[in-house]
Amino acid sequence: MKPETRKEEIIKTAAKLFKEKGYSAVTMRDIATAMGIKAASLYNHISSKQEILKDIIISLAEAFTQGMQQIKTAESSTIQKVEAVVKLHVEITAQNTYGMASLNNDWMHLEEKRDYYLSLRSGYESDFRSILLEGIKRKEITNSNVEVMLFSILSTLRSLYLWIPKKEDVTPDTLSKSLSTVLINGINK
Amino acid sequence: MKPETRKEEIIKTAAKLFKEKGYSAVTMRDIATAMGIKAASLYNHISSKQEILKDIIISLAEAFTQGMQQIKTAESSTIQKVEAVVKLHVEITAQNTYGMASLNNDWMHLEEKRDYYLSLRSGYESDFRSILLEGIKRKEITNSNVEVMLFSILSTLRSLYLWIPKKEDVTPDTLSKSLSTVLINGINK
Repeated sequence: MKPETRKEEIIKTAAKLFKEKGYSAVTMRDIATAMGIKAASLYNHISSKQEILKDIIISLAEAFTQGMQQIKTAESSTIQKVEAVVKLHVEITAQNTYGMASLNNDWMHLEEKRDYYLSLRSGYESDFRSILLEGIKRKEITNSNVEVMLFSILSTLRSLYLWIPKKEDVTPDTLSKSLSTVLINGINK
Repeated sequence: MKPETRKEEIIKTAAKLFKEKGYSAVTMRDIATAMGIKAASLYNHISSKQEILKDIIISLAEAFTQGMQQIKTAESSTIQKVEAVVKLHVEITAQNTYGMASLNNDWMHLEEKRDYYLSLRSGYESDFRSILLEGIKRKEITNSNVEVMLFSILSTLRSLYLWIPKKEDVTPDTLSKSLSTVLINGINK
């Protein structure tokens, strides 16, 4: 097995343990035990629990930022952009529910990368806000309170990691579509 | 100061510490220190950290269940019932954001009351699902996927404890109204 693959395996195992026990309660020894290897072998691939956390969270946060850059600059309507944001969240979350749990619950345990993470998060929210504001200006969406729209949509999308594991029979594509319908059109007839 | 009031003060202080550091990391000594009293004095009012957690979570969960019972049996339209659910969440959360953080993040640390909490939570979801299903049947709401509607609305409402502290200038009543508008009508024109 190549070092890269082993490292990915460590990160995957750690993310699962972080979700089950919380970041603070998990030790490097726990991760080694879960993988059936010696703790010393872990250190051939990774320097610390903090490095694992950073790898999990920053790679996900950068994937969201990268996705948002594409959506923001696309030549499409506001509604299409919101649909694309929903799809981005469903796809990233479906591929990595444990990592998304860490992103949501353990980001405050980041050390030197914490400010970087917070700047990505705040840039992401700011881009999404601009999309909604532009949509109101162009009269493509309703003129409701932008902060309430942003909070409502993002809260739902950020909770997907709790929900997707219970809905394994639903494909990401089907889920994106029905979630977009509800978030965009509401429940009113 | 009466014992009741002192107990409430302990619970309030503990909820704040649980939110900041996580339930597992907080000790009875931390709670005493934060209140400026001796740890031994705490035990005149409360037997353990577990009792505090139980008091916080179960009283909130019972308040939600009681609110839902009234909404469920009211003679009102489905849309009015959904508006009442939104109002219930905004009001309870605005009164107790730290407690709501515990409810969301620390419920898994409950010991003998864990099953009781989970039964309240599952009964609540089931009642809300029935309201939506009845609304579809009566053609009062759109015939979208009920699970997606339920997930989307509840995810937003359960995230209010993160958001309300940032919006201290908004009254619960104004917030309930604008949130209902977005959840019920979506963002489409």
